[in-house]
Amino acid sequence: MSKHETPRDPNEVLEEYEETLDSVLAEVESPDEATTDDDISLGLPGLSLGRRDFMKAGVAAGAMGSVAGCSALSGGDSSAGSQSTPSSSGASHTVEPGEHDEYYGFWSGGHSGELRVIGIPSMRELTRIPVFNTDCASGYGFTDGTQEMLEEGGGYSWGDNHHPNLSETDGDYDGEYLYVNDKANGRIARVNLTYFETDAITDVPNMQAIHGCCVLSPDTKYVLGNGEFRAPLPNDGTDAKNPDNYTSLFVAVDPDSMETQWQVKVDGNLDIVDTGKEGRWAISSAYNSEEATDIQGMTKDDRDNVKAFDIPAIEQAVENGNYEEVNGIPVVDGTQGSSLNQGDRPVVKYIPTPKSPHCVEVGPNGDYAFIAGKLSPTVTMLDLNALADSSDPDEVVAGRPRVGLGPLHTTFDGNGHAYTSLFIDSQTVKWDIQAAVEAEEGSEDSIIEKQDVHYNPGHIQALEAMTTDPDGEWLVSLNKLSKDRFLPVGPIMPDNDQLIHIGQGEKEMELVADHPAYPEPHDCVFAHKDKIDAKKVYDKDDYEETYITEEDSGVERTGENSVHVKMTTKRSEFGLPDFTVQEGDEVKLSTTNIEGVQDIIHGVAIPEHDINYAVAPQDTREVTFTADDPGVYWIYCTYFCSALHLEMRSRMIVEPAEG
Amino acid sequence: MSKHETPRDPNEVLEEYEETLDSVLAEVESPDEATTDDDISLGLPGLSLGRRDFMKAGVAAGAMGSVAGCSALSGGDSSAGSQSTPSSSGASHTVEPGEHDEYYGFWSGGHSGELRVIGIPSMRELTRIPVFNTDCASGYGFTDGTQEMLEEGGGYSWGDNHHPNLSETDGDYDGEYLYVNDKANGRIARVNLTYFETDAITDVPNMQAIHGCCVLSPDTKYVLGNGEFRAPLPNDGTDAKNPDNYTSLFVAVDPDSMETQWQVKVDGNLDIVDTGKEGRWAISSAYNSEEATDIQGMTKDDRDNVKAFDIPAIEQAVENGNYEEVNGIPVVDGTQGSSLNQGDRPVVKYIPTPKSPHCVEVGPNGDYAFIAGKLSPTVTMLDLNALADSSDPDEVVAGRPRVGLGPLHTTFDGNGHAYTSLFIDSQTVKWDIQAAVEAEEGSEDSIIEKQDVHYNPGHIQALEAMTTDPDGEWLVSLNKLSKDRFLPVGPIMPDNDQLIHIGQGEKEMELVADHPAYPEPHDCVFAHKDKIDAKKVYDKDDYEETYITEEDSGVERTGENSVHVKMTTKRSEFGLPDFTVQEGDEVKLSTTNIEGVQDIIHGVAIPEHDINYAVAPQDTREVTFTADDPGVYWIYCTYFCSALHLEMRSRMIVEPAEG
Repeated sequence: MSKHETPRDPNEVLEEYEETLDSVLAEVESPDEATTDDDISLGLPGLSLGRRDFMKAGVAAGAMGSVAGCSALSGGDSSAGSQSTPSSSGASHTVEPGEHDEYYGFWSGGHSGELRVIGIPSMRELTRIPVFNTDCASGYGFTDGTQEMLEEGGGYSWGDNHHPNLSETDGDYDGEYLYVNDKANGRIARVNLTYFETDAITDVPNMQAIHGCCVLSPDTKYVLGNGEFRAPLPNDGTDAKNPDNYTSLFVAVDPDSMETQWQVKVDGNLDIVDTGKEGRWAISSAYNSEEATDIQGMTKDDRDNVKAFDIPAIEQAVENGNYEEVNGIPVVDGTQGSSLNQGDRPVVKYIPTPKSPHCVEVGPNGDYAFIAGKLSPTVTMLDLNALADSSDPDEVVAGRPRVGLGPLHTTFDGNGHAYTSLFIDSQTVKWDIQAAVEAEEGSEDSIIEKQDVHYNPGHIQALEAMTTDPDGEWLVSLNKLSKDRFLPVGPIMPDNDQLIHIGQGEKEMELVADHPAYPEPHDCVFAHKDKIDAKKVYDKDDYEETYITEEDSGVERTGENSVHVKMTTKRSEFGLPDFTVQEGDEVKLSTTNIEGVQDIIHGVAIPEHDINYAVAPQDTREVTFTADDPGVYWIYCTYFCSALHLEMRSRMIVEPAEG
Repeated sequence: MSKHETPRDPNEVLEEYEETLDSVLAEVESPDEATTDDDISLGLPGLSLGRRDFMKAGVAAGAMGSVAGCSALSGGDSSAGSQSTPSSSGASHTVEPGEHDEYYGFWSGGHSGELRVIGIPSMRELTRIPVFNTDCASGYGFTDGTQEMLEEGGGYSWGDNHHPNLSETDGDYDGEYLYVNDKANGRIARVNLTYFETDAITDVPNMQAIHGCCVLSPDTKYVLGNGEFRAPLPNDGTDAKNPDNYTSLFVAVDPDSMETQWQVKVDGNLDIVDTGKEGRWAISSAYNSEEATDIQGMTKDDRDNVKAFDIPAIEQAVENGNYEEVNGIPVVDGTQGSSLNQGDRPVVKYIPTPKSPHCVEVGPNGDYAFIAGKLSPTVTMLDLNALADSSDPDEVVAGRPRVGLGPLHTTFDGNGHAYTSLFIDSQTVKWDIQAAVEAEEGSEDSIIEKQDVHYNPGHIQALEAMTTDPDGEWLVSLNKLSKDRFLPVGPIMPDNDQLIHIGQGEKEMELVADHPAYPEPHDCVFAHKDKIDAKKVYDKDDYEETYITEEDSGVERTGENSVHVKMTTKRSEFGLPDFTVQEGDEVKLSTTNIEGVQDIIHGVAIPEHDINYAVAPQDTREVTFTADDPGVYWIYCTYFCSALHLEMRSRMIVEPAEG
């Protein structure tokens, strides 16, 4: 029976939510069974309250908060949990020496600020791409060009990247760009996948925290971002203590110009966003419909509202001038009381869900958006085809399977299965999408199997799960805690990204490998190796800096206190064996790597001047600094480039100022 | 026949050196056989010269320099090269899910500035330890304490760490500290292995580049560093253009206070250093005995001098006041002409070797120092027992096997074998130490086998090879180029750290795994897991900051324009739901993580204030900033800590200044 046919009493949903909290409290109240960690009961202010009271009083914080770290231990549904030791089914993630991985994995690095490129199935880190951080290995944030980009992009030296998204053409990855958000500072960055480097950062006005981030399928018309934190608009200190005037925003950024196009003001805090496959709907999870400012207030009510943004309707509102301009950006009013939401085609539809849902993922064929319950043990399936005509939950909720405790994210294998991460149960649950539509709400009938993971998973991703044609085979569970899984490395332990073989069909899930991850990957996305076309040598036409030849190498005085030093690099030699500048000179140093051979990188390091940057074959980089301290400074090559690499040096002589 | 018995004509050594260059040129002149890289012949100024002339004219640079990048291809001694595909002998580096690695590997990160902790045999990166770089994942360089340490340690935001060294007691690793050098800025850092974090950085006076770095065995009396770049002393701009007055220094730093104790001035450029096992000798390789300032000049002569530092003799000179004080440091004159080198017990012995040797490693029993030839195809074995009585090469050179082209580093398995990396041949050569002593100089008789690596190895390390009791079993070859070994990731490709099984005895070497490495690991060192005792929760007694309890949480105005904000963290809650400061206030924010459970880290991020740092269980961290911009800022937790992690926030309200 489809949910369209038998609408269910919304109170049942609330009951399920209460059951969840009961289960959580049962775990917490029985520490002897639950854990060997002596301190696991620390900080549980809600324990003296009755269970119902606990939830109603809005102090779920302590109890829910305490669950991380003990889930190794019980497994809410342990009878369904499979062994963590790999079976002998033959699934191997070994990539033999010299063989290539089959897939690129792009991992957001969380508050490390970087992206990581990881090969699948080997799980080897192939490279890092600095985005919001600085990186002295490559010179990102050290050269003039990257420094300017970071400065114009907000001037911060870190960011919190969460959701990497590959650009799409016709609903498939085109291999051109990757877009990722900075939750901390409300930014969106673009990474060029020809050169694997960040080429644009947009500091979105009016938004403090962009959490959810996705591209609008099928042709990357926009990069969309969810403003999570509610703040005054504009946030200039006026009315700062009046939360009634706080707001949160949804934003559209142009993927080519990277300029902010428009924003939509909504009620509550936005969380995660994904789009349908036809360019119309962006579905955002949201919490804090109470619009409170503390955690007790944020968890007081029973419901929250998922937001369905109608992109063409928003565009029409902008075109019609139905917006307020704030800091140069058209801001459309998408709150529930807005006149734009009163007509036949509201700009935003609000769909009630159980309290504080977490992720939204749209399935491969675009029929359903899957909203993981977090505090509810269910996944709510929104019928995107029904959405145009209604926002009544009885009409648009297509299914709501009970999957386990703490469901956060869902991914797909393209064979009709969904896989949901269970943060509290520390499991991946595999379930049948059609069976969930046909089953009663809250039923476990669609569940196929559960796989223990270690421990407390956030995102999970299967191969190309966000396209219209997922590849199945492998799934990665990004677990936030590793606890006892690796050699101890001090108090800050790695995360644990686990590789799970999911085959192509009904085959069992099999945990194949643990991989430690430096804090703190948030999400990942996979592309088949044939969809990425990385260049190994720079094309001069692809950058603005002037290519320097060996004949160009020299020092040109450009002003009374400024010089331009040009020099080439090739194996074992800089274009200038030495050069002289005057104390106080502003020195612009331009360097071209004239090598034509792949993988012959040279580094340009200036001791005691905080300068180091890489120059790849046929690339040119520049750095500007002031020569403040008289003396001899040996510029040297930091990339081991040849047998005489050690001897590869230039000598900068800074002559004392006269007098 | 031992070399002690039959001293050899030094000219024979020169002939071998010339043979090497002949071999290199043969490779370079036959590009069709050598490579599929069209541009491999780029930049070979020496090609129009005869081979002997080439060497004599000192333009080896171009030819030697061009070899990197083509060695995949020929293999100077390819008949001896083994297959790169692993055999079916059963050596596996797989560590099953949940199982632990057997060894900690500590990788220097080169100009990434960080250390990396990698498990052996899985080759998984367990964590990173920021040292000379900043790191927003942990907040290294963001908190007051780490900022101050980096500022006092020179104020640079990057470094080039090369040689990680574990502290020793009785010649074995005691698991307390790791010391590593910064080649770029002449610094030495210490990493605390209880907490896996950098706890001291010393900016050594008078030295621009510390390249070689080791601890004085057997009890870590000093951390020793080789100053590589020659510069005026002091380097203040006077006499900067007169290389005759340049000098390079050897330094001793106290491992506890981390203060510079003394320096020794020598001729030529120092390279790598290792010590004997009895606390007397430090052996340094060196190049540029010509004391030239360009690469042609540095490769003009036929010989260089290895330096043997007599540590007790140097200490005696310091005690006797036989030094010049420069920038507060006693500098002992260890140049060849110094009066301190004229008596019975010189402070430094100069031992002639073939031109531009590279590494020095002292073997497990302390009998020999192994000096890899780089430009010579040989490894020179110095007899440390004979060194006290003589520096005559005929008496102290115990053997000189011909091992292959471009030998750079040697490691040991504790079973009488040495393994030398061959940069140009792209191989690891295994040879018998005693057989090399008994053979003629320049003989290949001691060679057991060669293993192809991919490509161009620098350091190699076997398990605990630097102790008196190496563990054999595994060896890692740190190859500088990966070229075709991994999925392409743009022009800056990863290095390739290859894991080779070497067994315990005469068993064949077997290449087991390729592992991509972000640029640019330089060296590594391994310790059995039982030798490291990492804490998982902080001990309050181990830090200076004041522990904050929930009762302490609050805001204290400490001055007209300054406040001290104290707050705790625990799962889902900061100690303060909000706090208010005034525009322009200097805010000191102190945070204690009151969790007692391992692996529950909280992060403290302040949007648009460039602040993020981690606080591990029972740890306290502080940050000081100015609240410049009025508005509402949501402080949030960056470490996914619980089911209600997303709701874990505090709210900073910055009120506008009056008027």
